[in-house]
Amino acid sequence: MNSIQARERLISAALGVDRPDLVIQGGSLLNVHTHEIYPADILILGDRIAAVDEPAASYPGVSTLIQAQGKTIVPGFIDPHIHLESSAVTLSEYVRVAVPRGVTTIAEDPHEIANVLGVEGIKLFFEEVRDLPINLLLRVPGRVPGISTAIETSGAEISLEQTKDLLDWEAAVCLAGDINPNLLLNQDPVQLEKIAYTMSLRKTISGQSPGLQGGTLNAYIAAGPEDSHVSEDTAEVLDILRHGLRALITHRQDFFKVEDYPALAGAIKTRNLDTRLLCFCSDDVQPHFLLSEGALDARIRLAIRNGIDPITAIQMATINTADFLRIDRDLGSIAPGKIADIVILDDLETVRVDRVIFHGKLAAERGKLARKPARFAYPGWAKNTVHLRRPVRSDDLPLRVANERNMVQARVIQMGMPKQEMIRKLSVENGVVLPDPDRDILSVAVLDRHKKSGNIGRGFVTGIGIKNGAVASTVSHDAHNIFVIGTDFQAMAMAVNRLAAIGGGHVAVRGREVVAQVELPVAGLISEEPVEVVAAKFETFERVLCEQMGCSVVHPLYFINFLCLPNIPHLGITDQGLINTDTMQVIDPIL
Amino acid sequence: MNSIQARERLISAALGVDRPDLVIQGGSLLNVHTHEIYPADILILGDRIAAVDEPAASYPGVSTLIQAQGKTIVPGFIDPHIHLESSAVTLSEYVRVAVPRGVTTIAEDPHEIANVLGVEGIKLFFEEVRDLPINLLLRVPGRVPGISTAIETSGAEISLEQTKDLLDWEAAVCLAGDINPNLLLNQDPVQLEKIAYTMSLRKTISGQSPGLQGGTLNAYIAAGPEDSHVSEDTAEVLDILRHGLRALITHRQDFFKVEDYPALAGAIKTRNLDTRLLCFCSDDVQPHFLLSEGALDARIRLAIRNGIDPITAIQMATINTADFLRIDRDLGSIAPGKIADIVILDDLETVRVDRVIFHGKLAAERGKLARKPARFAYPGWAKNTVHLRRPVRSDDLPLRVANERNMVQARVIQMGMPKQEMIRKLSVENGVVLPDPDRDILSVAVLDRHKKSGNIGRGFVTGIGIKNGAVASTVSHDAHNIFVIGTDFQAMAMAVNRLAAIGGGHVAVRGREVVAQVELPVAGLISEEPVEVVAAKFETFERVLCEQMGCSVVHPLYFINFLCLPNIPHLGITDQGLINTDTMQVIDPIL
Repeated sequence: MNSIQARERLISAALGVDRPDLVIQGGSLLNVHTHEIYPADILILGDRIAAVDEPAASYPGVSTLIQAQGKTIVPGFIDPHIHLESSAVTLSEYVRVAVPRGVTTIAEDPHEIANVLGVEGIKLFFEEVRDLPINLLLRVPGRVPGISTAIETSGAEISLEQTKDLLDWEAAVCLAGDINPNLLLNQDPVQLEKIAYTMSLRKTISGQSPGLQGGTLNAYIAAGPEDSHVSEDTAEVLDILRHGLRALITHRQDFFKVEDYPALAGAIKTRNLDTRLLCFCSDDVQPHFLLSEGALDARIRLAIRNGIDPITAIQMATINTADFLRIDRDLGSIAPGKIADIVILDDLETVRVDRVIFHGKLAAERGKLARKPARFAYPGWAKNTVHLRRPVRSDDLPLRVANERNMVQARVIQMGMPKQEMIRKLSVENGVVLPDPDRDILSVAVLDRHKKSGNIGRGFVTGIGIKNGAVASTVSHDAHNIFVIGTDFQAMAMAVNRLAAIGGGHVAVRGREVVAQVELPVAGLISEEPVEVVAAKFETFERVLCEQMGCSVVHPLYFINFLCLPNIPHLGITDQGLINTDTMQVIDPIL
Repeated sequence: MNSIQARERLISAALGVDRPDLVIQGGSLLNVHTHEIYPADILILGDRIAAVDEPAASYPGVSTLIQAQGKTIVPGFIDPHIHLESSAVTLSEYVRVAVPRGVTTIAEDPHEIANVLGVEGIKLFFEEVRDLPINLLLRVPGRVPGISTAIETSGAEISLEQTKDLLDWEAAVCLAGDINPNLLLNQDPVQLEKIAYTMSLRKTISGQSPGLQGGTLNAYIAAGPEDSHVSEDTAEVLDILRHGLRALITHRQDFFKVEDYPALAGAIKTRNLDTRLLCFCSDDVQPHFLLSEGALDARIRLAIRNGIDPITAIQMATINTADFLRIDRDLGSIAPGKIADIVILDDLETVRVDRVIFHGKLAAERGKLARKPARFAYPGWAKNTVHLRRPVRSDDLPLRVANERNMVQARVIQMGMPKQEMIRKLSVENGVVLPDPDRDILSVAVLDRHKKSGNIGRGFVTGIGIKNGAVASTVSHDAHNIFVIGTDFQAMAMAVNRLAAIGGGHVAVRGREVVAQVELPVAGLISEEPVEVVAAKFETFERVLCEQMGCSVVHPLYFINFLCLPNIPHLGITDQGLINTDTMQVIDPIL
């Protein structure tokens, strides 16, 4: 049935000539257009809403009626910015959690898998989604690899032409921005061309402007981006809204935190702000948080609990987001002609979901999907992505200096936001610069896992606090090479080799024993196991790090997975070595 | 300079590397994004805004500074739905009035000129605009001719393929809807195809749903339209907003009236409504009202005077409208990267305009354009559009019946909204059915003026009240044939022949004398004279009708120009005869 025939049928159903397939009867409609709640019945034909009517006593001949007395009916939630890979589970498993919580649309930025597998990696999600009750939209990665291959080996590249092809996809809603706004501020011509092309398609330019203000904020917005999802606090949120940038609200350990919601709620109320440019997004949600807190619904719930008016909060997850992504013709509200993605809430204040309708069909009820989707089999090539030249030896990993020295001044990466350079004296034995766990200085090595080049970058890091052993991971933004940190090189080598053996994930070694591991065989980023299993492994892994290995960071995995990232200030580390991210030059860790 | 170079320059200017061309300094910014007013300076480079900054004391080296102390800075007003032809002046003259009043963008539906001259007529406006300080956007006429040529002779047709070509224009922002919602409710396949094509371009579907509610309103919206500009009252406005339809607010003699503004303001306030779907438009504004009340600014002013919050009212003329027409990337707000269309208000409450900036340049100051545009010469073919087969004779115009009758029962068009059928007894002399001015029953004739067919439709009308003489006009929606109404056939013939002689417009004859005329030679719809001259002629014409000819309608021209229209219920009249507009059949005026 083409779209014209579908419209004809909708007209007939609205006029009462044809019967609707489904009626949601007796509930209270939360109207995101007018900011009201009132009784209304929803008539659905096929995958779209035919009519929103005053309540009727009965619907003779309608086969499926959903009784919604006492419940609040809201549009399906739209998450405008997520990285599925950060949840470390398959799309199917993500859907199993997120859809029963009311999320019916996600705009995925497959930046992580693309850095490993390129466009073919992106396509996997769009194959997997075919049997799933969710609208999967594509945020086209802005830059793969994230930095020049001269200073970091990447698993894949996406060319300008490939980027344009991706932007042409019907599912593509926006160009995803650079993580580093300086690239655009420096008038990067390729990025400006991608922006111009996206504009020509009448699609959205996404971005992020962490901490920018004044001239740099103005310049960044003038270049084209239409949103930022990383504000430090409410003051920054207000500043970007005033400059016409949409603010995508999520909480995380750095930047805007859970504790910042009340200030945002207060500012909205006090200033009677127009909130149309505010949206929620979930960005990076690790599997244990996905299970315990929720997906986008967790942001709505937190906002309401902290004082944002519930109708406004729902608007921030629906109509505002549909406007942002320019998908408002089809999604984001409950009105005639829109796709019937509808959430029936038991309770608005706590966003407790009763049932979820997706494309006019019951998709979830009482926390469970209505139908078990077919299992999607990830192909072998997607699960064979850890390519070392040979198993690593402990003597591959040390940073070495001329034999005659017994002490050096080293540049140490101080973890934090931003990552700072600390100069520390380190001992040298037989030319090997030694870590110093007593002073919380760990060795770090980054090993190319894509091209079998044998490249290893070496350096030091502080601020993690591991006292004995090593941690290795294939989750390492953005190129997702292997990084390993540790207090001794044998433990580090053992962790790396185990990581290679399991096809990627996270490995922790204490002494000479693997004490925790999380297998993430798909691209070295994603598990095929149930989300409950993956979440439990993440929790165990973090508990082992903190309780048995002395790690001083609460929830360290998210934190250390950004250790290497050379696209945020001021230091990063790649398989090519230590990177000054302000100059994008490889620098010597030894002064 | 291409768009990428322009973005590069904007970035440089925002960063302070390059100097802006223009700074608006010391004013208060009305921020339509956040619904706030606060001090801010606006930095402009070329045709776009480079930065919106906190106020600075000075801008060394900037050549042009506009001091805006004590003034309110708002985005240029966007009129999403106008018919220039109803203002009966050239685009240049319209701009001379509207731009100094703050209107910097108009979305023109050239439905009227297109019915006379086709696509070539539409192109005239887009040639004329090249030297004018206004963004001219195209609302692509939804149906030309408005009804089948089997029941009305039209000046031109626009095919489906031509419609698609027009939609492809960069200036095209929407498909304009049918005046008659029944066509879409009857699932007209061609209109549904136009809608589908417009959606594929990610452009807007415009419409109008006068008086629709319940099932028909739902069905209409489900078919695709995204707005209506003809609501009867505030209750209808609220109903359509709740169904996700944008409400374009204007006032007129019928439908939503000046007196309806306070109720709308009250509803917004009482219910704390989200107003994002509310916009203003001006639709049909006759030249005398354009001069005396204003253009879109008149709607904003009336809304504020009647209790709508001024910031909300400005949003309804800017950001809301930009969102509606999907031009928000460039227009509708004052933010970095947007086109610098800016209005500096002396006074927000009365919308008194000091200066207007268009594309970064001063366009108007203190009510006058900053620069006199080049005169646009309308070509001869556009001014030669009244084509009668031969001059009309008085015996061409009567409705005739069989000679033996001396009395008939006739269907008389009762003017009003809707137009009703009244059955009246009329005398017959020598087979001629006579008008009866004493009972306010006038003869009406409609003459094909496009194809020289000689077709004349004949009938009767009541509700106008002319006591002696005749009125003829080439402004007769939608086909713009000649209609003439009168108390005797000689006056009627005289009026028609004078109308043909002057190339179209309005002619009034009393006794055997032309007592008033308005020459509209361009397409029989538009004058090339200054707006002040045209407005005075309209006023004089209406005064003559009311004061010398007994017309009982206040401001009758707008009213009688819709007498014939066969696209609104329940009766119309064309050169083919009387039309039952519910069945779209020609019917006999005599029972």
